[in-house]
Amino acid sequence: MSNAIRISQNQKLSLKSIDPEASGGLNKEDAKERIQELGNELEELQELLSVSGMNGLLIVFQGRDTAGKEGAIKSVLNFSSVRTCNVAAFKVPTPLELSHDFLWRIHHNAPAKGSISIFNRSHYEDVLVVRVHEFVPKDIWGKRYDHINAWEKLLTDSGTIILKFMLHISFEEQEQQLLDREKEVEKAWKLNVQDWREREYWDKYTEAYEDALTMCSPESAPWFVIPANKKSARDVAILETIVETLRPYKKSWLQRLEAIGAKAKEELRVFREEK
Amino acid sequence: MSNAIRISQNQKLSLKSIDPEASGGLNKEDAKERIQELGNELEELQELLSVSGMNGLLIVFQGRDTAGKEGAIKSVLNFSSVRTCNVAAFKVPTPLELSHDFLWRIHHNAPAKGSISIFNRSHYEDVLVVRVHEFVPKDIWGKRYDHINAWEKLLTDSGTIILKFMLHISFEEQEQQLLDREKEVEKAWKLNVQDWREREYWDKYTEAYEDALTMCSPESAPWFVIPANKKSARDVAILETIVETLRPYKKSWLQRLEAIGAKAKEELRVFREEK
Repeated sequence: MSNAIRISQNQKLSLKSIDPEASGGLNKEDAKERIQELGNELEELQELLSVSGMNGLLIVFQGRDTAGKEGAIKSVLNFSSVRTCNVAAFKVPTPLELSHDFLWRIHHNAPAKGSISIFNRSHYEDVLVVRVHEFVPKDIWGKRYDHINAWEKLLTDSGTIILKFMLHISFEEQEQQLLDREKEVEKAWKLNVQDWREREYWDKYTEAYEDALTMCSPESAPWFVIPANKKSARDVAILETIVETLRPYKKSWLQRLEAIGAKAKEELRVFREEK
Repeated sequence: MSNAIRISQNQKLSLKSIDPEASGGLNKEDAKERIQELGNELEELQELLSVSGMNGLLIVFQGRDTAGKEGAIKSVLNFSSVRTCNVAAFKVPTPLELSHDFLWRIHHNAPAKGSISIFNRSHYEDVLVVRVHEFVPKDIWGKRYDHINAWEKLLTDSGTIILKFMLHISFEEQEQQLLDREKEVEKAWKLNVQDWREREYWDKYTEAYEDALTMCSPESAPWFVIPANKKSARDVAILETIVETLRPYKKSWLQRLEAIGAKAKEELRVFREEK
């Protein structure tokens, strides 16, 4: 059974009640094996998605500092094809980006049919950090949940599969991660006082996440909370969710490929006959 | 000694005289070990490039069908950070792209300082396939070598490090690869009669490559011919070239990081004192 917790639209959600330590009953060795197994299936499914060209896949990663977004993305990329997969990292918006609506820079990075986009942070920052620090007033960020739902609907109606992962770590785990960084003498450039300042807003972020997750989890584009204190359990839960989501599409992708293959073979036959 | 052959501007070049089977004297086991060794160094250098933010890196991959561009790119990505590295695959230009100059779509994908762009095919297609099939007349493609040199100079003058790899396979190896594909019954969708048609232009491509490589190999943005019949030798030569190119920058990157680290530590100290 998967360790990922699927959120339903408008459900009651308390992140505090979800254990960031949860391992889904797998020890590290078992998890490693499971990751390889899932990865192999993911590799196959991604290739089918790519060459059949019927669907795109958008995977959103959100989480607090040190939650492991990069590590989680790497665990997906390990089983991804260069040709297919693009990672977009959304940082502090530029003046040009800020002079547009908040989805402008995001839309540009949506996956085409046959390709995969992974978002390291996303449009959800505009109802998370922006809300917590009141970069814009509530009557602006408050409307964004509907904007997000409408935009994601546009994508799913055009054949894009959407998965959203919130990497869930504990307050204590984050502190440990930050302190560990300070011990790495040669990595002093990694230190950022901002990471410590943000911790003071922990509860405000929790509220903002709870609202975003429950207000933007339609059937077609759900959020999953991933317990993320334990890295291997985190990766199993993510890979499992992706694979289980893609599996039902496999049959139609194979049918399309059979048709493409038959056509290619016929063209090759005619070409050789003509020679 | 590296198996990569560095091209000098306007040198005489005969691709036929370069053995695509060359292995640089390494057997498969040795090559595997060497790849891991180089990969570890590459990983470290890429992180320094990224966080010091002083230089960008552009790596161009060109080669005929089945030359192994994707595999070679994967071998670099295996040691690359998600955060830093972006792959751009240039396919047949869209009508919008065609309505611009040929460097328009390329420029957009050039690496920022602190990041890496890998090109799967590139602006060189505009003096390769475009020249071989005369998609535009000679007085247009003939001017492009100068345009390319000027544009690449713009990049290197702005701190971008440029490396260009031509994956060199033999006519026989390509045939074998294409025939092998036909044996994979379930991969019939991979077949493309176009691959066989292009083989008829083999010698024309050879000429076009020889001109592109010798006319666009200034000191600051050289081409490397990589014998590519043997995959592990190919990957060793590529990784070796990248690592040897980046190594001389290491000292200045470390100096920059030391300064950043000292500043971060001081900010953290002040923050804690204030509490």
